Formats: sequence, structure tokens, C-alpha cells
Amino acid sequence: MKAPFQLTALEARRQMDAGTLTAEALARSCLERITEREPQVDAWQHLASDAAIARARELDRGPVGGPLHGIPFGVKDIIDTFDMPTEYGSPIYRGTQTRNDAACVALQREAGGVLFGKTVTTEFANLTPGKTKNPHDPRRTPGGSSSGSGAAVGAMMVPLALGTQTTASTIRPAAFCGVVGYRPTWGDLRLSGVREAAGSLDSLGLMARSIEDISLLRDVLLGRPWQPLEGTPPKPKIGFCRSHLWAQIEAPAAALLEDAAQRLSASGAQVVDIDLPAPFSEVLDAHRWVSSFEFARNFRHEVTHHWNLISEQLREGRLKDGLGCTFERYLEARTFLEGLRAELPALVGDCDLLLTAPCNGEAPIGTSTTGNPYFSALWTAMHVPCLTLPLFTGPNGMPIGAQLIGHRNRDRQLLDGARWVSSALS
Amino acid sequence: MKAPFQLTALEARRQMDAGTLTAEALARSCLERITEREPQVDAWQHLASDAAIARARELDRGPVGGPLHGIPFGVKDIIDTFDMPTEYGSPIYRGTQTRNDAACVALQREAGGVLFGKTVTTEFANLTPGKTKNPHDPRRTPGGSSSGSGAAVGAMMVPLALGTQTTASTIRPAAFCGVVGYRPTWGDLRLSGVREAAGSLDSLGLMARSIEDISLLRDVLLGRPWQPLEGTPPKPKIGFCRSHLWAQIEAPAAALLEDAAQRLSASGAQVVDIDLPAPFSEVLDAHRWVSSFEFARNFRHEVTHHWNLISEQLREGRLKDGLGCTFERYLEARTFLEGLRAELPALVGDCDLLLTAPCNGEAPIGTSTTGNPYFSALWTAMHVPCLTLPLFTGPNGMPIGAQLIGHRNRDRQLLDGARWVSSALS
Repeated sequence: MKAPFQLTALEARRQMDAGTLTAEALARSCLERITEREPQVDAWQHLASDAAIARARELDRGPVGGPLHGIPFGVKDIIDTFDMPTEYGSPIYRGTQTRNDAACVALQREAGGVLFGKTVTTEFANLTPGKTKNPHDPRRTPGGSSSGSGAAVGAMMVPLALGTQTTASTIRPAAFCGVVGYRPTWGDLRLSGVREAAGSLDSLGLMARSIEDISLLRDVLLGRPWQPLEGTPPKPKIGFCRSHLWAQIEAPAAALLEDAAQRLSASGAQVVDIDLPAPFSEVLDAHRWVSSFEFARNFRHEVTHHWNLISEQLREGRLKDGLGCTFERYLEARTFLEGLRAELPALVGDCDLLLTAPCNGEAPIGTSTTGNPYFSALWTAMHVPCLTLPLFTGPNGMPIGAQLIGHRNRDRQLLDGARWVSSALS
Repeated sequence: MKAPFQLTALEARRQMDAGTLTAEALARSCLERITEREPQVDAWQHLASDAAIARARELDRGPVGGPLHGIPFGVKDIIDTFDMPTEYGSPIYRGTQTRNDAACVALQREAGGVLFGKTVTTEFANLTPGKTKNPHDPRRTPGGSSSGSGAAVGAMMVPLALGTQTTASTIRPAAFCGVVGYRPTWGDLRLSGVREAAGSLDSLGLMARSIEDISLLRDVLLGRPWQPLEGTPPKPKIGFCRSHLWAQIEAPAAALLEDAAQRLSASGAQVVDIDLPAPFSEVLDAHRWVSSFEFARNFRHEVTHHWNLISEQLREGRLKDGLGCTFERYLEARTFLEGLRAELPALVGDCDLLLTAPCNGEAPIGTSTTGNPYFSALWTAMHVPCLTLPLFTGPNGMPIGAQLIGHRNRDRQLLDGARWVSSALS
């Protein structure tokens, strides 16, 4: 029998409905797990143990209500919370307290969720890592920028955590930490109270240990009643899309995905190869200019007042790119991406989803970088929903994911397709 | 000779360049004007007179530098500032101090602008008015939601002010207060530090007393060097677009616009009628569901914690709409608007700009509503750039504007077209 901390949100919820688990017992189990694992993992920027227990007890005094009743969750530390600091992964904001909950936090709390704390982010959700280590090997990066959220869910500290994604910031840490990561259709989930990095690309990112939990959390964040994924999902038509990035993938990861495509086909799915035409090889360059232009303007206050407290990596990377990028270059890149977004549906055709790599392989050794972002950035820029599933194990025993890409505005179909894929490959 | 407070930003800047005006003298002139007019107008939620004088003196000690060197400006009170409160037009946030400047404030300060203070907003940039009165008649609304910004520029308290626009919140107060109002191509200007209302529609809105000032401020907010509008603008081809809303326009306003179209034609511009097909009459309904769905989720924290401090108008209006709107209905409305955005360029054809009404007429008597928002909302929803020019005077002596609509991503062409129109009609 699973310990409470090992349960998915839905498993825990079912036990609460059955009267065999209390919110407090779940919170205490997760807090014990954190006590055990946190010294190696360092997933938390701020942990609110006492507040979590108090909230769980309060929930236990009432009926089992909202869809997240008693479910522990963490949020990336670029997301505002009224009762604990928000520090954006930067020394500039040490101890900063905001007045409000971000919309996404308020929605989760309203649904009965128990906020455990703020998870570590890289500096302003960019490249410079925080203290977090991969829960499966402390020598390795957890990925980023939602490093702590990926690690906390991967280490079974909490069943649910929120990140964000402007480039690869949810899919990559989810894949490296061995959890399910989901980046919704761009624009679906509200960002009030989440620090804007590059608004034309930013979205929330959801992390969990099951597809059903992702769907539940998505419903909560959409501010709608829970609509469970039910029944046997239809057999999807799958496009296997290696893309021009295939040259960057490590051989074991490539072999696992090639094998997966064959197994999916053997399970009865129609699997076809999808090639992206040449202009798609320029998406990453366009993404770079769009994100950097927007970021540099969004962070004008910090550039003016706190230049010396910004990491050299950020100053010499994205900020230098962005401050030097003309509006004309930005507009050209933005327009280019819009054009490809409009072309994509015809390329995907009647495939229900695409099978792709979320990263180039296992989480690399070293915690001074967060790994290769390109496999995720390509799809971020397309505004389509993305989901990574922790289906494989690499040669070093680290998780390797399969990234599934859906049609824009058809996220539910992606989640159903993912259920079929997950079941076929398990 | 004009008093300093009467100068546009560029006129003041030229006098500073010539050594005939100091930043302090300009600031003091504007502050005297505010002392004189504020008791009737109530444009300011927070006025930082001492800080403005101190900043102006500091600038006077150095060379005339940035493009906004010494230029007074105000910003709508939903925009964060590190040195004065941000209250969002709501008693919930009385006295709230944020840690940062919003990106747009930091960019203006970096360019040498002198922040005078925070201008009155309606409650959370929605419908419930603040204390501001129309500077041309205190019995009348200044429009909203950027009420204080429109009134402050219209009353010649400051040459520049920022608002925002999700529905009609810049164009309407600009037209009612007799100033130039500009809502850029959606997505061009960064919103970090600006409270999100409905992200898929939100943008900054710029107010000034000349087209050249709008262009200057736009360059500053784009984070690029000033690129002056120069030379004689080419004669534009103009589409006169009455739209299905023409039935709502007051006869004097309609006559002024009809006459303007004829005068523009007589001045040598090609003027053609542009009709919008039937689906455009459903834009406002779609706008309502999109904005309300997003708003209700963005304000989950306030709904949960401060329901009784939210006005009945907001609770029974946008929040009721939004909380009751399903995701499916939202998605349908969002997709419908996207479809019309894609259709619009073919309808506008080779017209350089459209001539439309910004409002249904003069600012109405009464300060309990902010007037008819539909003439502006139609174009907000299309993501195209919009500019209103204070070209006419109505039967009650109040300003009436002409709204010009440009092509998406061709804002500069709109500004040039507006120069031609303004010159031809003056």
C-alpha cells in the first residue's frame, strides 16, 4: 500500500472521499517526505509547514468539498502569494512580500488546495540556476526554469506544482525529474500575479504524477467544475515528428522514441512520420529575438536600479540580446512565428497528436546549466499544447520523457491521446 | 506665448534644448496648473509634487539627455510604481505599495520623464467610476476607465499620461476629454507591473496633446531611440467605416464625421465607404464573454477574500458574466474573434486607415457612468492600432473625436496618416 505522500492528487482525493485519509494526514506525510528529501534536493525557496498543517486541519473540520480538497501543492517562486515571500530567484527581491495571491494560486486555494510553499526558480525564470538538484541524482540538473516544481513533484514531496514556460521551463524540468509536465494552449490560463517574462510566449506550466491529475488541475485553473477524463480514449493517429533537432538528440533517447513509435504502431495506432519544412529550423532564432526583446523591456526597472545584482549570465545573454534587438527585428521574428503557427495545422493534418522528444536525453551531470531547451522551445513558439510523459529510463537510470504535442485549443484531445499512449507503452 | 504647462512634450523638449526652459520651471508650471484645476477635475489618485520637483532639479543639474528629459507624466493607478501607492481604484488596495515600477514606468523614467503621480482609474479598470470629472464640464463624465489620465492631459496638467485599454478605456476618455488617445497594435507594449484584466485584449493606452508626442512616447515604451515623424506624410487612402454601430451615434457627431469624410475627399484623399459584413455585429458579444471570462479568473483572489468591497456594479456585471461563462463559450468567442481578425485585412484592402467614431457623441452629463464603450471595443477586439484625434466640437461645446484605425503592425503608418488627416481638417 502506498504511503500518502506517494499518492497522486486523485488517489488521495478518493481516499478522502472514502474517509480513509485526512487532509492533515496527507499534509504530514508530505512534510515528512520533504524533511527526508529536501537536504538532497533543495526544491523549496520557502516552505510553509505550519500554515499547511493549519489549513489541512481547517479543511478536515468541514466536508470534503472542492476538487483539490486537502491536496498539497507548490508554486514556482515567480508567482505571487499573499502569505509568503515571492523572490523571483533573484537577490534583488530577497524577502519581498506581495499583497495578493496570483490568480492561479487563488484558484487552487479556492478549490481546497493546500499551498505548501514556493518552489525554486532560476533567476527570473531564465537560465541562471537556483540551488535545486535532480531528485534522481543530485549531481544532475533538475532542468529549469521551474526547477523546484519539477523536483518537488519528482521527489514525491507534493503531488502537484505549478511552473511557467516561456521557452522550455516546464517540459524540460518535468522530463528531467520524471514527472508529467503540461504546457497548455497559449492564452488559456490567466497570468495575473505571475511575473511577465515575454508575454507573447509565457504560459503557466502544470506538473503532476498522472495525466488525470494534470486534467484536474487544468480544470481548476480554468475556473470550471472538474470534468474527469473517463472511459477508454479513442485510438489516436500519431505523427512522429523528429524535426531538425534530431541531430542534437542523444542516441539512447532517440532509440527509445523510435522504439516507442514502433510499439505504438504495433498497439494499433496509425503512426506516420511528420516532417517540418525548412522554415521551422528558424523558429528557435525567432523565439530568441521575440523573448529577449520582450524580456529586456519587462525588466527595465531591474536593469536601471539593480544591474549589479543581475547575474552575468543574464546580463550577457538574454538582456544583451534584448537590449540590442531593434523593434523591426522583433516584429519580423514575431510575424514569422505567427505565419508558422498558421501553417502548422495543415502539416499536422489529421494526426491527433505528435510524438516528439522533450529534451535531448537524460538530465546532464552538473547543476550550473539547466540543459538543452530547444526541443521544447520549438513547440512553445507554436502556441500549441505540450505534454511530457515520464515513460522511459535512460542508460544512467535517469528518466526520459516523450513529449506529445496537440492541436491548439484541443488540449482535452491531447490529454486523452496521452492516456492512450501511456497505456500502450506501459 | 504659451505657458509651459500648455506645451506639448516635444515643444517643451525643444525649449529645453534651446536653454529657454528648465525641467523645474516646467514642473512648477504644471503643478500650478494642477493646483488651479484639480479641485474641479479630480484627476489624481496620488500626486507626488515634491518628488517631481526634486527629480526635475536633478535633471536640470545634468545635460538635456533622454527623449523625455524633464517631461511630466502621469500613469493610471493600476500601474505599479516603486515610490507611490497603487490602489487599482478599489478600497481593497487603499495605500498598497508595490516593490517595483511597471516596465512602462521604468522606461519613461529611464528616458528622463518626471512622474507626477497616479491618475484615477475606475474600479479595477472596469465600469464603476472614480472621482474624476470632465475637464471641459464638471457635470460630465471624463470617460473611463483611464479617467484621470484623459482628464489630466485634457486639463493641461501634464502633457503625457498612460492608461490601458481592454474595451474602450483609452480611446473613450481621450475623446471625451479632447486629447489624442492611442491604443497600439495588441502585444507591442509590455505589461509587466500592470494589473491584468483580460490578457487577450489588454494593452497600454497613450494620451497626449499631439500626434508627435504619441509617437515619441511610443518609441520610449518600445525601448528604442526616438524616431521623429518627419516630412509631409503621404496622402492616405481612407475607408470611412460607420459599422453597424452607426445607429447608436448621436446626430451631431454623425454629421461631423460625414462632413469630415467629405472634406478629406475634397483635400485630395481617396475616401471610400467600408462596410463590415454581418458577423462583425457579433464582435461586442464575443468581446463581452472573452473579457469577462478572463477577468473573473484574474480576480479570483478578490472574489474570495474581498467580495463585500467589490462594487455591486462589478459583481453583478462583469464578474457575474465571467463566473457564469463556461470555458467552451469563452473558447468559441475567442476563436470567433480570431477569425474576424484574420478576415479584416481583406476588408480594409488597400486603405491606409479607417475613419470611424470613437464614441457615440459628446461626453454625457452625469458621472455615474463612463459612457458608450462600443465604438472603441469593436476595434480593441480586432487587435489593430487605434488613434482618436480631438478634431471637433459638439453642440454643447464638448470635444468630439475622430477615431482612425490602422493595420495591425503598421502603427507608424497610422500615425503618419493621422498627421495628414489632422492637417487636412484643421
